Amino acid sequence: MIQKELHDECGVFGILDTEGRRDDAARLTYLGLFALQHRGQDSAGIAINTNGTLFCHKDNGLVVEAFNDMTINMLRGSAAIGHVRYPTQGGLGIECAQPMLIKYRGGQLALAHNGSLTNAFEMRARLEENGAIFQTGSDSEAMLALLARNRILTERMEDAIFMMMAEIQGAYSLVLMTRNKIIGVRDPLGIRPLCLGRLGSSYILASETCAIESIGGEIIRDIDPGEVVTITAAGVSSEFLTRDPDARKKSALCLFEFVYIARPDSTIDGASVYEARYEAGRTLAREQPCDADMVIGAPDSGIVASMGYAFESGIPYGSGLLKNRYVGRTFIQPTQMQRELAVTMKFSALKKSIGGKRLIMVDDSIVRGTTTRHIISMLKEAGAKEVHMRIASPPVLYSCFYGVDTPSQDELSACNMTLDEIREMIGADSLGYISLEGLTSSVKGLSCGLCCTCFDGAYPGGMPSSMVGKIRRIEFNSGRSVADSTR
Amino acid sequence: MIQKELHDECGVFGILDTEGRRDDAARLTYLGLFALQHRGQDSAGIAINTNGTLFCHKDNGLVVEAFNDMTINMLRGSAAIGHVRYPTQGGLGIECAQPMLIKYRGGQLALAHNGSLTNAFEMRARLEENGAIFQTGSDSEAMLALLARNRILTERMEDAIFMMMAEIQGAYSLVLMTRNKIIGVRDPLGIRPLCLGRLGSSYILASETCAIESIGGEIIRDIDPGEVVTITAAGVSSEFLTRDPDARKKSALCLFEFVYIARPDSTIDGASVYEARYEAGRTLAREQPCDADMVIGAPDSGIVASMGYAFESGIPYGSGLLKNRYVGRTFIQPTQMQRELAVTMKFSALKKSIGGKRLIMVDDSIVRGTTTRHIISMLKEAGAKEVHMRIASPPVLYSCFYGVDTPSQDELSACNMTLDEIREMIGADSLGYISLEGLTSSVKGLSCGLCCTCFDGAYPGGMPSSMVGKIRRIEFNSGRSVADSTR
Amino acid sequence: MIQKELHDECGVFGILDTEGRRDDAARLTYLGLFALQHRGQDSAGIAINTNGTLFCHKDNGLVVEAFNDMTINMLRGSAAIGHVRYPTQGGLGIECAQPMLIKYRGGQLALAHNGSLTNAFEMRARLEENGAIFQTGSDSEAMLALLARNRILTERMEDAIFMMMAEIQGAYSLVLMTRNKIIGVRDPLGIRPLCLGRLGSSYILASETCAIESIGGEIIRDIDPGEVVTITAAGVSSEFLTRDPDARKKSALCLFEFVYIARPDSTIDGASVYEARYEAGRTLAREQPCDADMVIGAPDSGIVASMGYAFESGIPYGSGLLKNRYVGRTFIQPTQMQRELAVTMKFSALKKSIGGKRLIMVDDSIVRGTTTRHIISMLKEAGAKEVHMRIASPPVLYSCFYGVDTPSQDELSACNMTLDEIREMIGADSLGYISLEGLTSSVKGLSCGLCCTCFDGAYPGGMPSSMVGKIRRIEFNSGRSVADSTR
Amino acid sequence: MIQKELHDECGVFGILDTEGRRDDAARLTYLGLFALQHRGQDSAGIAINTNGTLFCHKDNGLVVEAFNDMTINMLRGSAAIGHVRYPTQGGLGIECAQPMLIKYRGGQLALAHNGSLTNAFEMRARLEENGAIFQTGSDSEAMLALLARNRILTERMEDAIFMMMAEIQGAYSLVLMTRNKIIGVRDPLGIRPLCLGRLGSSYILASETCAIESIGGEIIRDIDPGEVVTITAAGVSSEFLTRDPDARKKSALCLFEFVYIARPDSTIDGASVYEARYEAGRTLAREQPCDADMVIGAPDSGIVASMGYAFESGIPYGSGLLKNRYVGRTFIQPTQMQRELAVTMKFSALKKSIGGKRLIMVDDSIVRGTTTRHIISMLKEAGAKEVHMRIASPPVLYSCFYGVDTPSQDELSACNMTLDEIREMIGADSLGYISLEGLTSSVKGLSCGLCCTCFDGAYPGGMPSSMVGKIRRIEFNSGRSVADSTR
Repeated sequence: MIQKELHDECGVFGILDTEGRRDDAARLTYLGLFALQHRGQDSAGIAINTNGTLFCHKDNGLVVEAFNDMTINMLRGSAAIGHVRYPTQGGLGIECAQPMLIKYRGGQLALAHNGSLTNAFEMRARLEENGAIFQTGSDSEAMLALLARNRILTERMEDAIFMMMAEIQGAYSLVLMTRNKIIGVRDPLGIRPLCLGRLGSSYILASETCAIESIGGEIIRDIDPGEVVTITAAGVSSEFLTRDPDARKKSALCLFEFVYIARPDSTIDGASVYEARYEAGRTLAREQPCDADMVIGAPDSGIVASMGYAFESGIPYGSGLLKNRYVGRTFIQPTQMQRELAVTMKFSALKKSIGGKRLIMVDDSIVRGTTTRHIISMLKEAGAKEVHMRIASPPVLYSCFYGVDTPSQDELSACNMTLDEIREMIGADSLGYISLEGLTSSVKGLSCGLCCTCFDGAYPGGMPSSMVGKIRRIEFNSGRSVADSTR
Repeated sequence: MIQKELHDECGVFGILDTEGRRDDAARLTYLGLFALQHRGQDSAGIAINTNGTLFCHKDNGLVVEAFNDMTINMLRGSAAIGHVRYPTQGGLGIECAQPMLIKYRGGQLALAHNGSLTNAFEMRARLEENGAIFQTGSDSEAMLALLARNRILTERMEDAIFMMMAEIQGAYSLVLMTRNKIIGVRDPLGIRPLCLGRLGSSYILASETCAIESIGGEIIRDIDPGEVVTITAAGVSSEFLTRDPDARKKSALCLFEFVYIARPDSTIDGASVYEARYEAGRTLAREQPCDADMVIGAPDSGIVASMGYAFESGIPYGSGLLKNRYVGRTFIQPTQMQRELAVTMKFSALKKSIGGKRLIMVDDSIVRGTTTRHIISMLKEAGAKEVHMRIASPPVLYSCFYGVDTPSQDELSACNMTLDEIREMIGADSLGYISLEGLTSSVKGLSCGLCCTCFDGAYPGGMPSSMVGKIRRIEFNSGRSVADSTR
Repeated sequence: MIQKELHDECGVFGILDTEGRRDDAARLTYLGLFALQHRGQDSAGIAINTNGTLFCHKDNGLVVEAFNDMTINMLRGSAAIGHVRYPTQGGLGIECAQPMLIKYRGGQLALAHNGSLTNAFEMRARLEENGAIFQTGSDSEAMLALLARNRILTERMEDAIFMMMAEIQGAYSLVLMTRNKIIGVRDPLGIRPLCLGRLGSSYILASETCAIESIGGEIIRDIDPGEVVTITAAGVSSEFLTRDPDARKKSALCLFEFVYIARPDSTIDGASVYEARYEAGRTLAREQPCDADMVIGAPDSGIVASMGYAFESGIPYGSGLLKNRYVGRTFIQPTQMQRELAVTMKFSALKKSIGGKRLIMVDDSIVRGTTTRHIISMLKEAGAKEVHMRIASPPVLYSCFYGVDTPSQDELSACNMTLDEIREMIGADSLGYISLEGLTSSVKGLSCGLCCTCFDGAYPGGMPSSMVGKIRRIEFNSGRSVADSTR
Repeated sequence: MIQKELHDECGVFGILDTEGRRDDAARLTYLGLFALQHRGQDSAGIAINTNGTLFCHKDNGLVVEAFNDMTINMLRGSAAIGHVRYPTQGGLGIECAQPMLIKYRGGQLALAHNGSLTNAFEMRARLEENGAIFQTGSDSEAMLALLARNRILTERMEDAIFMMMAEIQGAYSLVLMTRNKIIGVRDPLGIRPLCLGRLGSSYILASETCAIESIGGEIIRDIDPGEVVTITAAGVSSEFLTRDPDARKKSALCLFEFVYIARPDSTIDGASVYEARYEAGRTLAREQPCDADMVIGAPDSGIVASMGYAFESGIPYGSGLLKNRYVGRTFIQPTQMQRELAVTMKFSALKKSIGGKRLIMVDDSIVRGTTTRHIISMLKEAGAKEVHMRIASPPVLYSCFYGVDTPSQDELSACNMTLDEIREMIGADSLGYISLEGLTSSVKGLSCGLCCTCFDGAYPGGMPSSMVGKIRRIEFNSGRSVADSTR
C-alpha cells in the first residue's frame, strides 16, 4: 500500500558462537537488526550473554538511534538476542521494549517476540489469580511468567516451553536466551516466519533470511511450525511436542508477509518474497487487464508487482512518482493549510514521464484509500490522461489478531464500500483487485499452508474472546464488473 | 563527613486530595521531592492517579532533570506518590527507578520505598520457587510480588500489607498508591522516618517534615513504628497489626538521620535535626575540649555542630573553607596530575581568615578519612598553625544493612586503626570523637528508641543471612588519650 | 553513481509575501528546504524577517533535525530565506551554516549561497589588507564583507551586488534578504540553477522547481545568467549589469545537475531533469549496445537512465538490487571484519530476479569505482551470469571548482586507468560510457549553454590561482574497443 | 544580596607553557574556568593553540555542561584562553559566546573579554562606515575589528592594542591569543580585575587569583591598570602606552567585586575579598549597632559579613536559614499558586535556632528587595521575635555600565523609597546600611583607587552617549534615623 497504512511488525534475531571465542555477538545482532529494521521502527534492543551473565540495552527509535559505538562495544559476549518493535500489543513506553530480561527460579532468561497472542488476557488473569504481578501489558511478560511457573514442574527449559505452547494461542516466533543457550520457537501454525542460519562457528536465528545474509551468513533452513530449536556450544538440536507429519500442511504462514511485510530479498518457507510479488503482478495483469500506455508502481510497496504487471501485459514499465527519501518520523506538525501539502511533501509526479499518458498504477493493497486518492489526483494534475488502479492483493476485509496492525472493520474501505464506490473515492478510472486464488498461486515453492485471514476471515489461530461476535462476515461487493463500470 | 563518603538514602512522598478537586498532585509531589533531593540524586519518579488509572514517569538524574514543565503538566490527577533514589539495593538502570507500578489481581498498584530489607534474598527465592519472575534486583519488586500473592488470600490491601510485614525484615518506609487511596507504612522498628501532613483538603506522606513545609503544608504527626496509614477521600485512618503500648520504646530510629542524612530543618519523631546537631557540637565541646583560636565546620555537613562547639567553648566561630557551589556529578575525569587537584577544585582555604591561627575543625563523622586528610593539609598550607579535629559522632565501626551506604569494615578507618593512627593519617594535631552517650543525649525530645548499629553493632533489624558471621566485633582502640598523644 | 561518491551541493530558497499578510514564511521555507534536502544534508538554516528585523536559526543535520515545531512557530514573518548545505568550502562547524546574518552600515543583511568562488582567497586577502576580519572560511562571509564595503560607495543594494559581481569569479546562485526585500542573484555563466515562482501573493526563489511545486506554488521562470531579481511589496523587478543578448548562449549551466545533482522532477533552464536522464539512457543504449537478458539500475542514481536504456534496447527492465532505506549518517563504526559487510548492509541482490541472467547495470557515473566493484561482485554471487556496466555520463576527468565535490585527479579512476583497467577493477564483463555529445544532446529543450568541465576541462569560470598548473590535461584511454576486450 | 538579583559578570583565563612541552593547556583552562564559574553561568568556551593553529569550542551552560572528557581531550596544545559569560552586552545566542576566534590580515586571533565598553555604539558605527560587518552585537567583535584595522598601520599586535585602547572607553580586562603568544590587557582605570600567575613553566592570566590557586599555581602579581602583558616562549614582558606614575592612584577598581562579585578566597590588587567582607561586617556593627540575640547571614552572599558583624558586636553568630543546594536554572515554571512557594523552595528557616529570638540578618546589598521581604516574613513565621536588617554596602543608587548587571534606577528600591519605606516594604524591625566610607575603609591593603559608581554616580569611565542625561542624581533619603523609626 502507499505509505504506511498497515504498520510493520516486529523482528527478532539471535546468535550464539559454539566455540565461544568471538565476543562480538552484540555487534552482529546490531547488524542483523539493521537488516530487519523494516519490521519495526519504534524501539530496538539487544540482550548479551557475558560469561554467563545476561545484560540488556534497549531504547526507543531506530537501531542506529538506540545504539552507538560505545553501547555496542560495552556489550561483549559470544551470544546475544535482539528485537526491533512495532508495538502491536502493550503500551508505547520504553518498559515495553524488548528483549525482556528476567531473573526467576531458573536463573536469568531473555525473550524477544514477534507475533500476537489471542488468549493473553485469560492467561494473565489466571496468573494474576495465582499472585503474579505485571509491569507491562505485553505478551512477552505474560509468556515469561508462564515459563517461570512451568519451571517449577520441570527442569528443562524446553519442556517449560512446550507446556507454555499448550496454553497459549495465536502467533509467536520467539528467540530466548539463557545462561548457556539460545532457543528459537515457532507457533504450531507457523504464522510468523523464523529461520536458521550459520556464520562460521556461530548459529543464527532470525525473522527473515535477509538478516542472516546481510551479516555474511548462510541460510540453513526455516524453523518448522511447532518446532523448538536449541543452540548451545554443542550445536543445534530440535524438538517437537508432537511430531505431526501433516504439520506443514496444516500450518498457516501469514500471506501478508509476501504482500507487504517481508523484505523482497528474503525467502520464507521456500518461497521468494520478490518472486511472489512479481508473480502476483503478472497474475494481476491476466486477471485485471487494462489498455494503457505505461505501468507504474506505487512507491515503494507496489514496485515489484508493477514490474510483473508490465512484463506480463507488455505495457512499458515507467517511473511516475518520486518519493522524498528524507521523509521520516520527525516532520513538523503541519497546519491545516500545510496538511493538504503532506502528500506533496512526500511524493512528486514526473510530468515529463506521465504527461498525456494512460497509466496503470499497481499497489500491494488498499486499506483506507486516502493516500491513494491524493496520489491519483496528483498524477492527474501532472497530466496523466487516465489512472487505472490495480491491487496485487484481494480486498482487506478482516482485522488481524496475529501481529499485523490492520485497522478495525469500520475503517477498512472494502468493508464499507462497493468496488465502484472505492474507485470513485480514490478517483481512479478503473480499479481491479487480484483474486485470493491468484495471489496464493503466485507464492511459488511454498512448503506450508497460508493464513489468509485478512482476506477470508478464517482465523485459524482463533481470536481474543473479547472480539468474538464482533467481527462481521463480509462479502465484498464488486458490484458490476470493473469493465462494466460506467463513469 | 566531608564530601559524600556515606551516600544519602532515598526519599518518599505521597499526596491525596480528599475532595478530589485539585489535579496538580504531580506538581506538588515534584516540589516535595525537590525538598527531599538530599536523600537521593540518582533518579526521580512520580506516579499519578488520573481518574482511577495510574501512570508513572521516572528518569535518571535530579528531580529538575527528570521532569520538565511538559511532563509535569501531562501528569494530571488528585493523588500521586513520588520517589528520589540513591540506590542502596538493586542495579543502577532506569528499570530500578521508583515508584514501581504494576498490574496484578487487585488492579494497579504503585510503590515507593525508603530502606533496605535484610531477608530479601530468601523472600525472592521463595517467590521464585512459586513461579515469580523478577525484572530487577530491587526490594520494591519483591514487596510488590508479596503483596500480589497476599491479595489472593485477602481482599483488603491493608491486610495484604500486614501479611507482608510479618514476612519481611529490615528497614522500610513505604508509600503505596491504588485506584482510590494512598497508604503509608513504617516498619515495626521505625528505622526510617515517615510523617503525615496536610495542605488544605489534601493529606501528605513524606520522609521528612521539610517536604511538607516546603509546599506550604502543616505537619500533623510522625507515622508510628509498625503503623499502616490509609488516606482516601474519607480522610485518614490508621491500623496496627498488634497495638503494642511499648512499640515506641522498642523502636529503633536510625541515629544517622540526625548525624548526616536528614535536612536540618526537619523534625523526626519529636526531635529537631538542627537542634540535635547543634547540641552534639556543644556536648563534643565538653567531652573533647581544646585550646584554639577559631572553630570552623567541615562544609557542609559539619557546619551546625561546629556552631554548637563554638558556642559552648566560647571560641569564636569562623569560616575557613570555601566550597565551590558548582561541583556536580558531571566533572571530567581528571588525569593523574589533576586527580591531586580534585580537592583543590572543590574546596579552597581562606588564608586571611585562618592564617597563623589554631583551628578546631568539626565534622559530622569520619568514614575513610581521605578527604579529611587533604583538607587538613590544605588548611595548613594556607597558614593554619594547628588543626584539631573534632567529630560529632562516635567512630563508625559497623556496616549498615538498613539503607545507609556505609562501606565494609575493611574500608572503615576506625575498624583498622587506633585513634592515634587515624589522627596521624589525617594529619591533625589532635583528634576527638563524641561518645555515643553524648550523641544520643543530644537528640532532644525524641519520642522513640534509636538504632545505633553503625556505632555499636546492635543490629536490631537483623542482618542478611549472607553476612552472618562476617561482621567483626570491634572495640575501638582509643589507645592513649588524645591529650597524651606525643607528636 | 552508486552511493554518494560525489557529494551533493547546497540548496537555497527565499519567499516574500507582497501583501505582507501571511506570517508563515519560515514554515513555507522549511517545506521548500525539505524538497531541496538532496542538495545538502549537513546543516539547515532559515532567516526570517519579523516586522523589519531579521532573525536566524540554523543547526547541524537534516531540515527535520535542525527545526522542530517550536522553532518554526517562533520564526514569524512575511519573508524568509533558507539554506541546506553540503560544505564545499569552509569548515564544518555550525558557524559556517547558512544563511549568514550580519549587521553593517546598511542595516541587517542575510545571505544564502549555492556554488563556489574561484578567487575567494584573493578577495579575502584584499579585504583583510583593509582591515576586515573573518570568523569563518566561507565564501558567504567574504561576499557579505564585499557588499558591506560596496555600500559605502552606493546606496542601492542592487548596485553593491553588481560591484561585487564585477569582482568575484566562479559559481554562485544567491538569495539575500534585507529589511524590505529578498534578492536573487545568478552568476553571469549561470553555473548553478535558480528559479522564480509564486504562491498566491508570495514570490519564491529556489534552487530547483521541485521546491516551488512542493509547496503548491507555480513556476514562473528561471533566473537569467547575470540577472539580479528583486522582490519587494511592489512585486518583482529585474536588472542586469550589461544586457548581453547572447548571455544565454555564452552561459554554462552545470551539466552534472542533469546527471546526478538535481531532483528528477525539476526542470532547469527549460530542460526536464527526468527527461535528460531517460534520454541519456536511450542514447547510451544506442552508443553502447549489449546483448543481455535484463537491464537494472544502480540504486538510486542510475534508475531513470536504466529505464531509458531498457526502453530503447527492448531488453526488459528489472529490479536486481535492494537498498536498505534506513541507511543514514549515524551508523556505528564497523570493525575491519564488518567493514567488508558495509556494502552488504546497504544493498542486497534479488537472487530470484537475476539468477542465471546476463545483466546490464546502468549508473549515472563512476568516480572511484570501489562501490561499483562490491556491487558487481554481489550480483555475481547472487547468480548473475554476466554484468555489463553502462555509464550515462562520460568519464569524469577533471575536478570541479564550481560547487561539486569531485575528488582530485589522483583519485578519479578515469584519470589513472584505461577503460579496460577500470572494467577489470570493477569486475564487469564489459564497460561503456556515453559520449559527451550523446549526453548533451539528451538534455532536451535547454535554453542555455552547458559547463562540461568535469568531462572536458574547459573551466569557463576560471580556476583558483592555487590550482593553476596543477590540473593535468587527460585524454581518456579507451584503448581497445569494449567489444575487443579479451577476458 | 539574597538570590541573584545582581547578575555576575564574566571571567577570563589564559595559559601558555613557555617550554611548549605540555599539551594540556585546555584541560588546565577548563579547571581554571571552573574556579571562575561564579562570574558567569550562561556559556563557556576555550580556544586552544595546536601547533600554531587556533581552534575554539564553546557552548551554552556551565563549564561542566559545555565540555566533557571527549571535547577536552580533543583540544590539545600548549596555550589556551577561556571564558565564562554572563551576558552584559550582546544577545544570548551561542554566536555571542566567547572566546571569539577570527582570521584577519595578521593571521588568527582569539579574544576573551570581561567588562563593558561605553562607546561601543560609536565605534561600531565608525567601523561600519568603513565597510565592516558584524555578526553579533558584542563588544568583543567590535574590538577584534578595531585590532584588525589597526594592524594595517602597525606590525606589532601590542601596538594595535594600544591604538585600540586610545579609542575605546569603559571597562575591559582582556585575554588574547595569537599563533605564538597570549596577551593580557587591563583598561587604564583597572575597573575589572586581572592577575598573573605561574605553574611550573607555564604562565597564567586570570580574572581572579582563585583560578590560579585552584590549579596549583602561584600568584605573581596583579596586572596594572593600562598594562599590556605579553607571554611567549621567551617569558613575560610588559608595556604601557604612557607610564603614569600616578596610574594606580587614578585607577578605579570596581568596589562591587569586594561586595558581591569575586570569590572570597581571591585577592584583588592587594586586598583580600574575604577580609574586605569580614571587615565591612565589623564596620557595619559599629556604624549600625543593634541589640539582638543572634546574628545570621543571608545565604550565601551575606555570610562573611555577618560573621564580622557577630565578632565585632559580640552577639553570637548562628544559622537561621537553609538554602536548598539543588536550586538551579532548570526549575519548572511555577503556577501562580506555586510562585508564592518559590522562596519556600529555595530557603527554609531553622525554627529551633531562631524561635523566640531577636535576629540581626546581614546581607551584602539590597537591590529590589523582594526576596528580602519574603525571607524576613519566613523568619517571622518561624518564630523570630524581631528581624533587624543590616546591609554591608551603601544603598545602590546608580546603574553600572562597566559590566555589572544592575537594574535601571526605576527598579532600584533606594532610588524610589526612603529608608523607612524600604524597611517597611521588607518588613524589617530596623534597617541600616554601612556608609561608603565605612565600606571603602574595610578594603584593607588595596593598592589602587576604587570605582564606587553604583553608590556615588561618579562614572569615572564615562557612560554611553545614549544614557547621557537619563541618569538622575539621587540623594538617598535616610529620613529619620533608624533609631527614630516608629513602627
